[in-house]
Amino acid sequence: MVITVPATSANLGPGFDTLGLALNLRNEIEIEKAEYTTIDIYGENAEYLKSLKRNYFVDIFNDIYKNLTGKTDSFSFKFNNKIPLSRGLGSSSAVIVAAITAAYEMAQVPYKKDKIINLALQYEPHPDNITPATLGGFCVAKLKKNRVYFLKKFIPTNLRAIIVIPKKTVSTAKSRSTLKTHYPLKDVVTNVSSTAMITAAFFSEKFDILRNVVEDKIHQENRMKIMPELFRVREIALREGALMSTLSGSGSTFFNLAYKDDAYSIYSSLKDNFKDFDVKILYFDNIGVKVYN
Amino acid sequence: MVITVPATSANLGPGFDTLGLALNLRNEIEIEKAEYTTIDIYGENAEYLKSLKRNYFVDIFNDIYKNLTGKTDSFSFKFNNKIPLSRGLGSSSAVIVAAITAAYEMAQVPYKKDKIINLALQYEPHPDNITPATLGGFCVAKLKKNRVYFLKKFIPTNLRAIIVIPKKTVSTAKSRSTLKTHYPLKDVVTNVSSTAMITAAFFSEKFDILRNVVEDKIHQENRMKIMPELFRVREIALREGALMSTLSGSGSTFFNLAYKDDAYSIYSSLKDNFKDFDVKILYFDNIGVKVYN
Repeated sequence: MVITVPATSANLGPGFDTLGLALNLRNEIEIEKAEYTTIDIYGENAEYLKSLKRNYFVDIFNDIYKNLTGKTDSFSFKFNNKIPLSRGLGSSSAVIVAAITAAYEMAQVPYKKDKIINLALQYEPHPDNITPATLGGFCVAKLKKNRVYFLKKFIPTNLRAIIVIPKKTVSTAKSRSTLKTHYPLKDVVTNVSSTAMITAAFFSEKFDILRNVVEDKIHQENRMKIMPELFRVREIALREGALMSTLSGSGSTFFNLAYKDDAYSIYSSLKDNFKDFDVKILYFDNIGVKVYN
Repeated sequence: MVITVPATSANLGPGFDTLGLALNLRNEIEIEKAEYTTIDIYGENAEYLKSLKRNYFVDIFNDIYKNLTGKTDSFSFKFNNKIPLSRGLGSSSAVIVAAITAAYEMAQVPYKKDKIINLALQYEPHPDNITPATLGGFCVAKLKKNRVYFLKKFIPTNLRAIIVIPKKTVSTAKSRSTLKTHYPLKDVVTNVSSTAMITAAFFSEKFDILRNVVEDKIHQENRMKIMPELFRVREIALREGALMSTLSGSGSTFFNLAYKDDAYSIYSSLKDNFKDFDVKILYFDNIGVKVYN
């Protein structure tokens, strides 16, 4: 069995812990029943992941599989990773969502994606990456009384993401520690209104308006100060025609949204100006976690 | 010429200064060129409005008309008001939007509704009532650098508003003075995520989810304490099947959204429990300000 799961970009600027979307950059995991457990890791950060004492995917998979079947079976796991770690591209949500889905499949217990999202919440307390990792598309998610409520919109094919991935990682916990504890009413209104406009723009497919309405007063400026080149990434992306340009999750990656016809010139300018950063043009993903039996 | 303009309900709970929708409760103004200016007022608060030294509509109309034509002409104005004053139903935005529209019509200067909204901003600094008063429907609005950006969604015909109008008025300025100046991050996230979910629910016409996602930590509790019966209005409306139940603007009216099949039982319960309040079932308006020549 093969499971694939997409990278995700959360927050989208003002939509703190709320908005997220899925990118067509996918980890693939091949799993088979086996005599004894084996783990092979290829791709992004393979050497680092091999050096760890525990494999996060395997731990969650075993946990859920045992809950569902009462058994501890052995499997061979082969990871082909494309999502870089600790860059704000949802790598840990991808692992969680894929591991839970794999356990249900291997246990042959029927499930709905809603179930996956709510189980994932036990491992990742913010719903903004796990929702699009599970469903694909543009997602609005809200946590209430330990449940995730969500709505999804397909992202049309005339859009592209141009992502800029710095070499430096950022820990979400460290990045959260840069935030202020209280915010003045006018800043709250800025984020409330911007998040509502982004949501309306995606759901009505009126993307032009994004050029004027994406403002964040909660987290981006403080987080970007950790890596000040990001201010120039945003400046260049917007100048070259990006519809919006925001930190991806808590960083360090920058997410830029553009019409497909503008994507290449944004990509080239960013590549020319930031030789040390990995710049990619990506399609969006509208499927989320997917299983091939 | 006759101008009609709808009542509006803004904020919708968490969507402070951002969300608003139009109700089919309309003021009508009849205007004709005349030898000298006459003003007749009928309907809601007519006696009070007649007692004022200035007529707000006529002042704005004359202001804009003179800007457009360079002239000061005389008109007869006949007001037939349905929107109660100072109850959070957008009566002043209705006056502003109708007066500006009337002036453009009488001056025979072509205009777009976008223009009306941005002119209205000179008289009313928050865009959440003026946008739906102009356009109708469910509107998301954002102010940036003295411009209003907005997106609108038609409200389907299977929905009704049940509004509960207390006798007591609330001044927006006084109501704003009850607000805290700073908000903790978790409260900001509550409002950001709730506002995004309401927006997604209206734009995707998935209204059931509203029962679980409408939470506000910015303004409602403090404002409702001015009139504590409103807590019971909300409780009863939700118990009887309302999809959401929020303060209308800054109050004192309460706005309840429901499927048309649930509207009557919500209406009856509220009417039985609050003999002193005016309870109405209303259709939504998807047209906004409208001119009959």
